[in-house]
Amino acid sequence: MVQPIRFSANINTFNAGADRYVLSGYGERYPTDKLIRMATEIDGLSGIELVGMWHVNDGNVETIRKQVADAGLHVSCVTPDIWASSQWGKGSFTSNDPKIRAAAILEVKKSMDWAKQLNCEVIDLWFGQDGYDYPFQANFETAWDRIIDGVVECAEHRPEVKIVIEYKPKEPRTHCYIASVGKTLLLIDRVKRPNVGAMIDVGHALMGYENVAESATLLHYFGQKLFYMHFNDNWRLWDDDMTVGSVHTIEMLELLYWLDRINYKGWYALDIFPYRENGQRAAQESIRWLQGFQDLLDKIDRVRVDRAIEENDAMETSTILREALLG
Amino acid sequence: MVQPIRFSANINTFNAGADRYVLSGYGERYPTDKLIRMATEIDGLSGIELVGMWHVNDGNVETIRKQVADAGLHVSCVTPDIWASSQWGKGSFTSNDPKIRAAAILEVKKSMDWAKQLNCEVIDLWFGQDGYDYPFQANFETAWDRIIDGVVECAEHRPEVKIVIEYKPKEPRTHCYIASVGKTLLLIDRVKRPNVGAMIDVGHALMGYENVAESATLLHYFGQKLFYMHFNDNWRLWDDDMTVGSVHTIEMLELLYWLDRINYKGWYALDIFPYRENGQRAAQESIRWLQGFQDLLDKIDRVRVDRAIEENDAMETSTILREALLG
Amino acid sequence: MVQPIRFSANINTFNAGADRYVLSGYGERYPTDKLIRMATEIDGLSGIELVGMWHVNDGNVETIRKQVADAGLHVSCVTPDIWASSQWGKGSFTSNDPKIRAAAILEVKKSMDWAKQLNCEVIDLWFGQDGYDYPFQANFETAWDRIIDGVVECAEHRPEVKIVIEYKPKEPRTHCYIASVGKTLLLIDRVKRPNVGAMIDVGHALMGYENVAESATLLHYFGQKLFYMHFNDNWRLWDDDMTVGSVHTIEMLELLYWLDRINYKGWYALDIFPYRENGQRAAQESIRWLQGFQDLLDKIDRVRVDRAIEENDAMETSTILREALLG
Amino acid sequence: MVQPIRFSANINTFNAGADRYVLSGYGERYPTDKLIRMATEIDGLSGIELVGMWHVNDGNVETIRKQVADAGLHVSCVTPDIWASSQWGKGSFTSNDPKIRAAAILEVKKSMDWAKQLNCEVIDLWFGQDGYDYPFQANFETAWDRIIDGVVECAEHRPEVKIVIEYKPKEPRTHCYIASVGKTLLLIDRVKRPNVGAMIDVGHALMGYENVAESATLLHYFGQKLFYMHFNDNWRLWDDDMTVGSVHTIEMLELLYWLDRINYKGWYALDIFPYRENGQRAAQESIRWLQGFQDLLDKIDRVRVDRAIEENDAMETSTILREALLG
Repeated sequence: MVQPIRFSANINTFNAGADRYVLSGYGERYPTDKLIRMATEIDGLSGIELVGMWHVNDGNVETIRKQVADAGLHVSCVTPDIWASSQWGKGSFTSNDPKIRAAAILEVKKSMDWAKQLNCEVIDLWFGQDGYDYPFQANFETAWDRIIDGVVECAEHRPEVKIVIEYKPKEPRTHCYIASVGKTLLLIDRVKRPNVGAMIDVGHALMGYENVAESATLLHYFGQKLFYMHFNDNWRLWDDDMTVGSVHTIEMLELLYWLDRINYKGWYALDIFPYRENGQRAAQESIRWLQGFQDLLDKIDRVRVDRAIEENDAMETSTILREALLG
Repeated sequence: MVQPIRFSANINTFNAGADRYVLSGYGERYPTDKLIRMATEIDGLSGIELVGMWHVNDGNVETIRKQVADAGLHVSCVTPDIWASSQWGKGSFTSNDPKIRAAAILEVKKSMDWAKQLNCEVIDLWFGQDGYDYPFQANFETAWDRIIDGVVECAEHRPEVKIVIEYKPKEPRTHCYIASVGKTLLLIDRVKRPNVGAMIDVGHALMGYENVAESATLLHYFGQKLFYMHFNDNWRLWDDDMTVGSVHTIEMLELLYWLDRINYKGWYALDIFPYRENGQRAAQESIRWLQGFQDLLDKIDRVRVDRAIEENDAMETSTILREALLG
Repeated sequence: MVQPIRFSANINTFNAGADRYVLSGYGERYPTDKLIRMATEIDGLSGIELVGMWHVNDGNVETIRKQVADAGLHVSCVTPDIWASSQWGKGSFTSNDPKIRAAAILEVKKSMDWAKQLNCEVIDLWFGQDGYDYPFQANFETAWDRIIDGVVECAEHRPEVKIVIEYKPKEPRTHCYIASVGKTLLLIDRVKRPNVGAMIDVGHALMGYENVAESATLLHYFGQKLFYMHFNDNWRLWDDDMTVGSVHTIEMLELLYWLDRINYKGWYALDIFPYRENGQRAAQESIRWLQGFQDLLDKIDRVRVDRAIEENDAMETSTILREALLG
Repeated sequence: MVQPIRFSANINTFNAGADRYVLSGYGERYPTDKLIRMATEIDGLSGIELVGMWHVNDGNVETIRKQVADAGLHVSCVTPDIWASSQWGKGSFTSNDPKIRAAAILEVKKSMDWAKQLNCEVIDLWFGQDGYDYPFQANFETAWDRIIDGVVECAEHRPEVKIVIEYKPKEPRTHCYIASVGKTLLLIDRVKRPNVGAMIDVGHALMGYENVAESATLLHYFGQKLFYMHFNDNWRLWDDDMTVGSVHTIEMLELLYWLDRINYKGWYALDIFPYRENGQRAAQESIRWLQGFQDLLDKIDRVRVDRAIEENDAMETSTILREALLG
């Protein structure tokens, strides 16, 4: 790895996580300035993600910019909130209500403005509420029309800010429209704007039975569209948002190998929900696992790995990985 | 079906549902008395479930008893809340903290007391927080010791109140200890108290790749331990808590067929989360689907079905079901 | 439904099915002429699918053409065998061995020739062996290059024969490259030939957590590329290849509704593996379920369904479907 | 680890694997004597498994005994074939045909006899064909009656030979009766014979969303019934039968940790299907991964791990494992 890796984390990592049973959260809740200070205490963390309206708004953007700068951090991504209140419950860009659609698009544009002011290159477009729950509930054609049109409108608002599409198979809807790496590339193809690309959230890919390394490579292969990465881990069937390295070892190594091979230069951001764990420790562990994986990849004979892959020699890569991990 | 079916629903069905993204809920929230009144407006509904502390407590139990009676309803089940606040986050009966364990057992006993006062036969023991999230996080032996001991203590508190164990593979923990029909029967076997049995939540069984009809029959086969039923539906991989009939048709018919065959006489209770739907309409639809399924089963030639099952003749049952459903 | 539906089935439906444990098969094996005669005994079946080399080859194509015509049947599809012998075990179009790649492409071209001679419009390109089993085993970029190039070469061989890409998430490889509806559309986009489109195998879509109705609509939405349909059923997690209607009812209705709505005019072909069932009865049941589903859709108030979908009103469609199915 | 680990492998590991598409197999097929010789070439392998009728029968048992002894190997397990020919297709012990049931039980008894003659302690009872494929196809009560009765009869045939029940959720049936660790313990409880216990096949547990370490511990907790282990790996949703270590690292470590903690002294046997890989290399890699995992566990501070587990401290075990694996 020649290029140094830049780590980021959503500052909510340090806040209480909640779920549908414990709505008040499993831990303590803190104000934004405290969350930013908590980020500075994590070794190796140089970036933070902010959520629009939760952490940044028209009134506080300059204050936040200064707080982040004073803390020696960068804002790696701003995420517009178009999924965390009941107004978006039946869709944001795909809502049947034109007022909701307009409001959602406005929310994204505002996040692009804030990103610009915060010297942040990326905003994260996650269509969590755009999907359906029941059979016979959705007009798929109308939904795609609206998503394509909406993304184009946002992309043109500020061509200098990158929009990264974050796909997810389900949750909070039982089916999300932008569900997989393939559908994400179809959307990017139709939108055809240079500032529109994708992120991979590792857990979202895993829960869709994608091999994350393959998905990352395909986003690169089809137009160099991998702009951002969200790291976490899970048990493969649900977005458990666990700490990096807690379940998947070999697949994480394959992902990091291919990120290097396709020359990915974006942030390595954490998107974890450490419900019952200490958020700072969870972030620190996640970063140390990623660093440890990178160090291991630096040590192995890359020519030998490359050749084994060219030859599809699974037993040879088994040997290489085993010797690197277990000596 | 000779015996008339009794339908029940948790009164939260009529309240706003929330999830980890929309913590404030997708709809309106109502007080308990309003929720009880809303239940009376559902055709066919004669029972309600209450949650301990949410709806019933030492101070209001007599008031609630009267409200329910005046509404012409029965309380089919009281569910102790040992999973909906952060104190239970690292386990209730299996917590490492003896004070938490004692508090959880006390909560269950109080629900048994309230059930008694409400002329309700059943309390629902769901160990949602008793499990683990990460590998290397749990001592499985200690956990089972604590669960067995705790259930025995509760069972002896009021032998006239039935305790039904509600199993679930995961959520809110990534792994729950009491995860499957098999583990539930092991627990019941070790506890060995006549007032301890099981319920099946249809969605929990589906998400564990159980055939619900088979699970119900096994609970009957191993000691007549099926005491209660929770109905809902999902897409088989997660506890989506959808309305009955929305996804599964044939398997629901097989379940109802076997419930009749094993002479199940307990409640048919709804446990649905109609996040974005009208709660009353969702309950009404669920009951009408169940009634419709029962009517269909009443019409088909039972001798022919029984014989096809004895002969494992899947194409014959295909024909019978097709003719019944599609004419 | 104005247009009459044309049903087809692979003639192997009537042959013994085998799996990795019972390699010699669960039933009897018959010669091709017998299998064709067996097809004529199925009510409603007017088409058959043949597999290249298994049923048709350069030496017998005229004989087969005559047998099929005499039987009053049509050949709906020829499937080149590029996945059923050990030579394809490490890939067909994506093999590292250029001789294997050339042989696979030749096999496809020959199937196109036979299709032409048999008055058949469609050949089925299923890349079952093109994928990988282990992490660190595949070069994803090279694989896609080879698939794109190979499909272009085949498409140009006979522009008058349609090539339909059949996607599948896994099996026989643990990961197939052409795994989902999204990836299939990316391939079709890059190949850019009017005679290259897709088929959906219902079971393959289900096992990928796709809603089949949505996948069909997307293939139509992105360039009218749904050319063919394979029907079967499964328990959603594996390609169980069961008879139609045996598990999924509501989703099958949603699929047929959308096939009608997008004006799909291709074959409704069966791709089932009735391992332990009588193949003819399994085919007959499958067709009757499809016919029954169509009849039900013809009876319901289409304006009311359309409106409920536009309004995303899941409880309204619940009511409509319940009344149609259960009266 | 004080006790040395004994490794075994089914000799079919070295034979061509086949699946439902490539019925003739992906590689070469060898006679039994050659397969035994191939086993001797694997470092660390001291045991082999044989399948009744495939490798051992009344006529050759003495020859085989001598071949194995001369090769310096032990027979760790004999597996009666009650699942690999069409006669068992609709069940072995649960068949509706009393002649089939009797034949299956006889097959098991013969394997017990051969085991005895081969100085082998264990036979493996896998009910792969005992289940069902379709809804409304099975009488669950009759099936359990027959399984319990049959196992009792076999257990009494030779109390000195251990019968290990091998559970699996599905395949070749879409649902197997003995599907999970919980159901296996229920069966063992009802059978109540000291020579009847269980094995865990790692892949079978993984595909049922079991945490294998937990399942092993429960088999120990409920009567010390873990008699045998089958190792392999998969992508968690299907029995891919891959080499050990190829996908799961942390969970495999947790399993080995608990096997040691519950004082498991049985064989560590491989049950892999290296379809496209060299069988000997696949076995060698699997054993080396297991040895490497054990070496790693020997190096870590066991007191620290034990304490972290008692305290459910997932971040502490994350640190311990990370430092051990990645330095």
